[in-house]
Amino acid sequence: MIKQRATNVHWHEGDITKADRERLNGHRAVCLWFTGLSGSGKSTIAREVEKILYERGIHAYVLDGDNIRHGLNKDLGFSPEDRSENIRRIGEVAKLFVDAGFIVMTAFISPYRKDRDNVRKLMKEGEFAEIYIKCTIDVCEARDPKGLYKKARAGEIKEFTGISAPYEEPVNPELVIDTSVEDDVRVNASKVVAFLEENGYLQIPQEVASAEVQK
Amino acid sequence: MIKQRATNVHWHEGDITKADRERLNGHRAVCLWFTGLSGSGKSTIAREVEKILYERGIHAYVLDGDNIRHGLNKDLGFSPEDRSENIRRIGEVAKLFVDAGFIVMTAFISPYRKDRDNVRKLMKEGEFAEIYIKCTIDVCEARDPKGLYKKARAGEIKEFTGISAPYEEPVNPELVIDTSVEDDVRVNASKVVAFLEENGYLQIPQEVASAEVQK
Repeated sequence: MIKQRATNVHWHEGDITKADRERLNGHRAVCLWFTGLSGSGKSTIAREVEKILYERGIHAYVLDGDNIRHGLNKDLGFSPEDRSENIRRIGEVAKLFVDAGFIVMTAFISPYRKDRDNVRKLMKEGEFAEIYIKCTIDVCEARDPKGLYKKARAGEIKEFTGISAPYEEPVNPELVIDTSVEDDVRVNASKVVAFLEENGYLQIPQEVASAEVQK
Repeated sequence: MIKQRATNVHWHEGDITKADRERLNGHRAVCLWFTGLSGSGKSTIAREVEKILYERGIHAYVLDGDNIRHGLNKDLGFSPEDRSENIRRIGEVAKLFVDAGFIVMTAFISPYRKDRDNVRKLMKEGEFAEIYIKCTIDVCEARDPKGLYKKARAGEIKEFTGISAPYEEPVNPELVIDTSVEDDVRVNASKVVAFLEENGYLQIPQEVASAEVQK
């Protein structure tokens, strides 16, 4: 069984807007920007949230190393300049996904506060939420899911965040999830979904649903 | 009135795939790559197609100069190298939108055959269709909607496609629309929609609709 498509969404004068797409989807668009150390659980939690939202018919998409580092940003390395350009481009792509009506989740270490703040500035109020996936370096290093900490300690990887490059903690993130305290991915994903629910992202306000929106 | 969200889409083991998103949306995902001279009508036709698809509840999105040149690619100029990098990045973003389940339309001059072919290679069979918006340089220059040809003739813009930089026509595009013969945007947009219909993009095959898809 597949769902029926909407037949009651009508186009007004002008180009299709984000509000139009939100009406079509039946939920708000937002960028959830996950930040934290390697091994903290960013991508795992984001992909679990994606599954939960998918089952509810919500349009969500995850940008992470798997689909960005070997594609759009394959020309970039790990110097401070390249890390900044990496985050800038991801921010611009996330903005496009928000404009397209998605709940887009980005899962990158994004260690520099200034880079994250620049992405926030790209978007409008309410379109960006910083989610700090907090975890002690000791726990991340003990997990070491990709063996990267081991390589960093051996000096095989230069400029590794937390070891030989800085991580600047968020000052005022919209949500903090500490995975060194609670590491169950379902529990942690449900906290993100609760954040979306409590802030009204999983439905659209009546005035948006009923109004002809001006561009 | 807003539409009801699907409640009958269930997640299988593994991450959410393009096929899952196509089931959720009720249509296929594809990149329609519009190419042609400045003033040929690429963006105008793409945005008209977007409106038609929106009214049918189809998830479509246009990438064009308006949302790319001042955002993701604001660091790039118009040299051959920068034009290539411009197209490479747009191709990678289009690929993400296809993966996310969209009918994504890109509207850029994209004058070099090699750059367009590289984007085609990024995607799988059936995920990319080249749409040549054909128009004589005389007609484009007479239209000159942004006054760019005038500036190019005056030497105020260097490396302007068709005047002082080459345009390499597509060799074997999936669709050709000649706007110097027919310039009604609705007629031309309907040709694109007909292409999508005839090639099965506006519905999903029964086997995709009913199957549990493996990653």
